[in-house]
Amino acid sequence: MAGEDRVLANGAKYIDFQTDPSRYRHWKLDVEGDVATLTMDVDENGGLFEGYQLKLNSYDLGVDIELADAVQRLRFEHPEVKVVVLRSGKNRVFCAGANIRMLAGSTHAHKVNFCKFTNETRNGFEDSSENSGQKFISVVNGTAAGGGYELALATDHIIMADDGAAAVALPEVPLLAVLPGTGGLTRVVDKRKVRRDHADYFCTIEEGIKGKRAVQWRLVDEIVPNSKLDARVAERAKQFAAASKRNGDGKAVVLAPLPRTIDDNGIRYGFVSVDIDRDARIATISIAAPDAPPPAGIDGVVAQGASFWPLQVARELDDAILHLRINELGIAMLVFKSHGDGAQVLAYDAFLEANKTHWLVNEIRHYWKRVLKRIDVTSRTLVTLVEPGSCFAGTLAELVFAADRSYMLIGSREGDNRAPPAIVLSAMNFGPYPMSHGLTRLQSRFQADASDLETAQAKIGEPLDAEAAEALGLVTFALDDIDWDDEVRVFFEERTSFSPDGLTGMEANLRFVGPETMESKIFSRLTAWQNWIFQRPNAVGEQGALRRYGTGERPQFDMTRV
Amino acid sequence: MAGEDRVLANGAKYIDFQTDPSRYRHWKLDVEGDVATLTMDVDENGGLFEGYQLKLNSYDLGVDIELADAVQRLRFEHPEVKVVVLRSGKNRVFCAGANIRMLAGSTHAHKVNFCKFTNETRNGFEDSSENSGQKFISVVNGTAAGGGYELALATDHIIMADDGAAAVALPEVPLLAVLPGTGGLTRVVDKRKVRRDHADYFCTIEEGIKGKRAVQWRLVDEIVPNSKLDARVAERAKQFAAASKRNGDGKAVVLAPLPRTIDDNGIRYGFVSVDIDRDARIATISIAAPDAPPPAGIDGVVAQGASFWPLQVARELDDAILHLRINELGIAMLVFKSHGDGAQVLAYDAFLEANKTHWLVNEIRHYWKRVLKRIDVTSRTLVTLVEPGSCFAGTLAELVFAADRSYMLIGSREGDNRAPPAIVLSAMNFGPYPMSHGLTRLQSRFQADASDLETAQAKIGEPLDAEAAEALGLVTFALDDIDWDDEVRVFFEERTSFSPDGLTGMEANLRFVGPETMESKIFSRLTAWQNWIFQRPNAVGEQGALRRYGTGERPQFDMTRV
Repeated sequence: MAGEDRVLANGAKYIDFQTDPSRYRHWKLDVEGDVATLTMDVDENGGLFEGYQLKLNSYDLGVDIELADAVQRLRFEHPEVKVVVLRSGKNRVFCAGANIRMLAGSTHAHKVNFCKFTNETRNGFEDSSENSGQKFISVVNGTAAGGGYELALATDHIIMADDGAAAVALPEVPLLAVLPGTGGLTRVVDKRKVRRDHADYFCTIEEGIKGKRAVQWRLVDEIVPNSKLDARVAERAKQFAAASKRNGDGKAVVLAPLPRTIDDNGIRYGFVSVDIDRDARIATISIAAPDAPPPAGIDGVVAQGASFWPLQVARELDDAILHLRINELGIAMLVFKSHGDGAQVLAYDAFLEANKTHWLVNEIRHYWKRVLKRIDVTSRTLVTLVEPGSCFAGTLAELVFAADRSYMLIGSREGDNRAPPAIVLSAMNFGPYPMSHGLTRLQSRFQADASDLETAQAKIGEPLDAEAAEALGLVTFALDDIDWDDEVRVFFEERTSFSPDGLTGMEANLRFVGPETMESKIFSRLTAWQNWIFQRPNAVGEQGALRRYGTGERPQFDMTRV
Repeated sequence: MAGEDRVLANGAKYIDFQTDPSRYRHWKLDVEGDVATLTMDVDENGGLFEGYQLKLNSYDLGVDIELADAVQRLRFEHPEVKVVVLRSGKNRVFCAGANIRMLAGSTHAHKVNFCKFTNETRNGFEDSSENSGQKFISVVNGTAAGGGYELALATDHIIMADDGAAAVALPEVPLLAVLPGTGGLTRVVDKRKVRRDHADYFCTIEEGIKGKRAVQWRLVDEIVPNSKLDARVAERAKQFAAASKRNGDGKAVVLAPLPRTIDDNGIRYGFVSVDIDRDARIATISIAAPDAPPPAGIDGVVAQGASFWPLQVARELDDAILHLRINELGIAMLVFKSHGDGAQVLAYDAFLEANKTHWLVNEIRHYWKRVLKRIDVTSRTLVTLVEPGSCFAGTLAELVFAADRSYMLIGSREGDNRAPPAIVLSAMNFGPYPMSHGLTRLQSRFQADASDLETAQAKIGEPLDAEAAEALGLVTFALDDIDWDDEVRVFFEERTSFSPDGLTGMEANLRFVGPETMESKIFSRLTAWQNWIFQRPNAVGEQGALRRYGTGERPQFDMTRV
């Protein structure tokens, strides 16, 4: 297998997904009226790891962490922004895609996790466009190659300079013997609906396509002479802003730094905590219910800002998942627990439902949806334990349904005077949080008989004990105190002893039942093929294309067709 | 990488997909009235390769070739059969799945191709059930593990003995660190709609599930005490036969041995020929138009039997594709050509359309559909060249639309007095031959603008020259004589120089645009994950689970989660 992970730059001990515009090294965020401009101007010497330079606006995970942060802040901190213009700060190059030396030197696990996060960031553009009315325009002023073109593909509208030089390209197959790793193949044919034989041609030429053919083949939306480029961008921004459904009023919510302490054994946030048991290879993620009821009205939410419970918990959970995914590769299983007053969780759900047309509440709901989707595609076994003192109600109950398996205690434990646990459903379990394939977790769960979904819906607000929850199909196993310890212990021990690869493939298949969407196709079909190819000697072997790139030596391929 | 392909048994030089019941070593086919019984009784010493024994009704590709042949013959040679009962000839074991020693000793390419063929065979059950009215019942009299249960999953109805021993299981993940390779995960949740957390449990226990829980969890349809098993099977067979839409009358068509000669440079059939250029790594598949018009009526077809042009060509093309896939792993590209009178091809299409309600014509149409699907999932670059003398009309034009790219000559060649080539569309291009994801090839092609499909449909029957075909979007490139040789040569040279893995992943993504079905999910999502896992050291390394199975030594896993 190619390479080992390199050393993190500047003595960092882990990859941190928290940043803010004052710390960006690669992006500039400028807002003028209802138009934001995100300028990519990658600092060559700002790589996340030591040992490579980020030339020609090529990127690594560190660059993408800033981009994801900017897109997130635009939604919360800039209610006035209706259009985001994505452009390059370099002359005659838009973006050269993922840095090849970084890829060649990365472990398989890093490459796969890197692609997963960049996919989530690109999907975030489309989610913002669809659900927040922030439309994305990309301005391809030069070469947009590989991940560079994939960045543009995630936007709503691609304007390319018509100067005989600017071109879009997906040269991965001919140049590097890998696939475009961030949704490119799927977006070309499924989003932009490029004809499949045109796509075949396009994806096998290194130099890409420019000028009129790029428009005729639907690879870009329009080409414009350089002299008119800025005027056209301004014109399109104006049009898109006018068509946006975003209200544009409202007071920004600043995403203040998360309260967080990280040590060897876990992470402590305000409401979320992560306990890492390295010997058992288990991370336990506990979520605390709110300690106060929601504010009386929407003004109170705006005043609370980032400390409004649903927003703070979503941010903490998001950061915890990302941290575990990339910094804790030995962890096999995420165990979700909760504690506190379920009635408070439901009160917040009721608030989110009553105020759903408010822009900020809309953002918070969609953010929860994205955090839950991130959990769905996390390649660790997901388990939820519903025990006395827990508060798996409404939004938090989604963690029961997202789990590969859930266990719920029947009754109380000896010597524990807390009430038996209950699951309570709310409106949030029946619509606002679809998975990437378009179904809610309960819809996925009840494929066999849709009336089970109606039966569950009729129980909204009713505390359901273990036997009721099991009868309704909401938990995998209801166990009494006598069986619990042994059953759960044996399950944990067995599960963590299995091959992680087999589990990754199994879980990726069983979690997504039924239909597929462009997004789920990217995470399943495309990702799986890329994972395969990222393993093949033709790509990552000593004589493979990724390793030989830029050395002047041609790669040597085993020409066996599989 | 694990192992090399073993030596074929009995001195065979290649794997032959042609067989007939008189040569079966592993299956018995008995027909009584409208019920056929397919009994699996694998000959331990009848492995396709040397070096392993097929114990406990485990199978290799050779076993599956016989099964595919039997299912095919049931459709053509047994118009009277409405129900197929699949059972085991062994005591207390239904089928132990793919032979593990065979898998452990196989190359990656063989494993992948083996899984592809077994998937096609299982899909064939479902196609027969849906389109020919032959319903499948499996009788699980003992252990149905892994591929054994996947065999049952492909049937319409699973009856299991309720004797405390018979069980269904998918033990691949806990036992072998690979996935069930023949659609198991997808069929469990998408076809049988087992709840995903139940499926998670089921797929991680070695011993499987028996008795009532198997029914409650939807893993089987019914359990029956051994004393009543045969009576229940007979009863169900009667019910399914009564509900079958199969007419049951009509004269059998015997699938006589194909005319075929194979040598180092290719294969000659009656209408299909394959020329292999090993240096260029290209196989050219040429199809000849019929040399006589279709018979006047359906009786004539029955009289011609297997030599009826559409049926014979389908069988020849099917055999050629299968042969190339598994015996010619160095071939990068399949180039389709045709020659003869396109008007004759269209006359046969018109016959197939006019008589589509006749059972035999129905079988032939669905067989063509399946052959074309086999081409769609073949991991070689597919190219179609439309040149003077060709007859890409109707059914044969599907090979233009199945191709990753097509080239069509504008006008004639100097010194060639044949007319310029034409493509002619027929009704067969607009419905009868959907791809595995449910769209026709032209629907897939015209995703961007559905009116292009209507425009093409309006041209049915009209000869379309290269420029017209290009304007309609039916071919990738129309080239004149001056450009043709250079363009095609450079394309062939470049394409065959690329990493075969990158091409496989790229083609698998670009060919299937738009929606997904259970079948396409099996070939894309599930297959891609399995290909990945079949590469991982945790499965196939020296200390991996596949290699260590049965040795008494535990596998050693790298526990990094990817």
